[in-house]
Amino acid sequence: MSERSSGGARSRSWPSPADFAAPPGPVERARWEEADRAARPARLARLRARFADAGVDAYFGVRREHMRYLTGFSLAEGEEKVAGQSGQFLVTGDEVVVLADSRYTIQVGREAPESRVFTAYNDLPARWPELLASAGARRVAVEAGFVSQATWSRLAAAAPDVDLVPVEGWVEADRATKEPAELARVAAACAVADRALAALLPEIRTGLTEHALALRLEWLIRTGGAEALAFDVACLAGPEAALPHGSPGDRPILDGTVLLFDFGAQVAGYRSDMTRTLFVGEPAGRDLDIYRLVATAQSSAIDWVAAAVSTGTGPLPTGRAVDAAARNVIEAAGHGERFGHGTGHGIGLATHELPSLGKFAPDVPLPSPTVFSVEPGIYLEGEMGVRIEDLVLLDASARRLERLTRFPREALVVG
Amino acid sequence: MSERSSGGARSRSWPSPADFAAPPGPVERARWEEADRAARPARLARLRARFADAGVDAYFGVRREHMRYLTGFSLAEGEEKVAGQSGQFLVTGDEVVVLADSRYTIQVGREAPESRVFTAYNDLPARWPELLASAGARRVAVEAGFVSQATWSRLAAAAPDVDLVPVEGWVEADRATKEPAELARVAAACAVADRALAALLPEIRTGLTEHALALRLEWLIRTGGAEALAFDVACLAGPEAALPHGSPGDRPILDGTVLLFDFGAQVAGYRSDMTRTLFVGEPAGRDLDIYRLVATAQSSAIDWVAAAVSTGTGPLPTGRAVDAAARNVIEAAGHGERFGHGTGHGIGLATHELPSLGKFAPDVPLPSPTVFSVEPGIYLEGEMGVRIEDLVLLDASARRLERLTRFPREALVVG
Repeated sequence: MSERSSGGARSRSWPSPADFAAPPGPVERARWEEADRAARPARLARLRARFADAGVDAYFGVRREHMRYLTGFSLAEGEEKVAGQSGQFLVTGDEVVVLADSRYTIQVGREAPESRVFTAYNDLPARWPELLASAGARRVAVEAGFVSQATWSRLAAAAPDVDLVPVEGWVEADRATKEPAELARVAAACAVADRALAALLPEIRTGLTEHALALRLEWLIRTGGAEALAFDVACLAGPEAALPHGSPGDRPILDGTVLLFDFGAQVAGYRSDMTRTLFVGEPAGRDLDIYRLVATAQSSAIDWVAAAVSTGTGPLPTGRAVDAAARNVIEAAGHGERFGHGTGHGIGLATHELPSLGKFAPDVPLPSPTVFSVEPGIYLEGEMGVRIEDLVLLDASARRLERLTRFPREALVVG
Repeated sequence: MSERSSGGARSRSWPSPADFAAPPGPVERARWEEADRAARPARLARLRARFADAGVDAYFGVRREHMRYLTGFSLAEGEEKVAGQSGQFLVTGDEVVVLADSRYTIQVGREAPESRVFTAYNDLPARWPELLASAGARRVAVEAGFVSQATWSRLAAAAPDVDLVPVEGWVEADRATKEPAELARVAAACAVADRALAALLPEIRTGLTEHALALRLEWLIRTGGAEALAFDVACLAGPEAALPHGSPGDRPILDGTVLLFDFGAQVAGYRSDMTRTLFVGEPAGRDLDIYRLVATAQSSAIDWVAAAVSTGTGPLPTGRAVDAAARNVIEAAGHGERFGHGTGHGIGLATHELPSLGKFAPDVPLPSPTVFSVEPGIYLEGEMGVRIEDLVLLDASARRLERLTRFPREALVVG
């Protein structure tokens, strides 16, 4: 981190890209690929360990993230829509079968070498009995949250003697606990995002549009070590920042307003997510108060989890409790109604995954090791909004809570 | 179009961006928005006209493209995954209800002003009875191809006295026939893509990677009038071009190889899709022969449909027949086995929509007016591949078939 003023709102010395970790090189990437390959047997074993209780002898998966996690085969975000059945997979007690049409057979061979390829076009119901017979499956757990009702009905009709058992959340629960090479990739994605925003700061000028800045930030991310965005960049100026899911428009950046960036990078399949709210020109007192309140709420939640983890005794906090730790600060200041979303979410192959940190999150201890966002916000409709979001890594056995997002949280003035 | 040689492979005068239509301005965009608003009652009427036959009194939709088409509310590609139930909608005989959580209520008010907003978070099953009661729905058609089996089961359990009727393809069939303002947007998206590739041509050099060229082309599209890509740019060099759905890698472009670009733009919600296979350096005789064969197959199919349309009598060709018109040329030359995919697909709000043009396409006449791709290819695994793809507009009542992709189809040498 470059030197910067810590007390005042105006920080004349911004962070610089060189303050953050450099993007990973080919050696690191090859190591991660190898780590995935080495981890797949254990991932499959955790899945198979659920078979007996559920009375099934196979698992049929269609979710993009699960394909990659369990088989190695990867589709780009949205590619499912054109990939047909390619990448859908069946795990039995002793093998993994990956479906592919001719467009994808070479890729499956490369990325999922431990799997058997089963050729299928847009005709899964027609091939379903043969697929099951070839794998010896008679009672199949199916990802009910991702298979459409129409497909479900066709599969059921195609093999009436095979039971389809709807299951949800099995692999999602397993994925919430992260391996070291998964955490390393989330951290690398955080650094790519940190660097990109640092590189953008000197370019921000009043008169530029949200859209132009969003596109520029995207460019910096995608030429700075990420193979993709984690999600579309949100760049929201002034009153638009009060829309927690707004999209960048042709609105110019004006002096005396806030400028909110919510964005993330994807590095070797794993994602980051961060939000910073900047000030264009000297902030109004009210806006700075809101900013400091959000920053305090965020730090309080993180410090509270850190303290709980550092003792190494007792159960880990629940996602609900972490949410309360942030929310209490905002409620105590009378802005509870203006913080309408949850405090955070897990992240990994998907931008939003378990654990969930919110008022209605399951009342169970957080998994470990894991990584999640802490992102309280306050939104004054029609006026402005502030959100500050960092990813944190929690590792209970190491008694460690670490911010993976390293970009400073002090109020920064740009423009 | 700039002057260029028509016979030889080498075209020293490439097309220039100025050869193609300029990106649409705000006046045109406002007109399209107005056209959508004016068209929504007719779109809804077509949907409601199906109610009586199916014995339903409402339609519950979740597909992103249908939200926009019927209500005006638009989510970005992939935003469904984080939007929860926001944008899902219920059409009854006399109203349209759009679900939204607090993040989206302002946007629904802006974009879908004729709709009633119904607040729902990630709790649709809990709100389902109230939603149906508020709309007076007792027997609901549900998009079975897009609602998961798990959600379906929960909705059925939440309101056991309401019948859920699985329906598929209703709105998809309606969307295959395009309004003038829809066709104008597809044409505008084609022009943005044409201009972008023309701007890229002089920048292509041996040694650049597929990935760098894909990113540069994306940048030209997204700063050239498109709000988004239609899909990730495919830039595939040499043997990689034999993968009909390959992704750009860190492979450098080499002299004496083919370079395939498959890409599209999205303009005001509507998409384009085009493929060009270029030659890096003077092409080998075999490669040029393959190229010419694909070009002939493509032209033959288009010319054949044009002839059928121009008479204005008899039924329109079927998608299967158009496929055969292209495929026969390739089969006659002994390469039938190397053309493994269909000849084309409709396009609009989605990249792939009806009509379908392939060996197994439904044996029914094409809709009209409509727009679809014609994209035969030949793939020599491990060596090279060629695909040429244009969008064509078919308007039977005007006896018109028009190429919307205007980029030249002659073999072009770059590098």
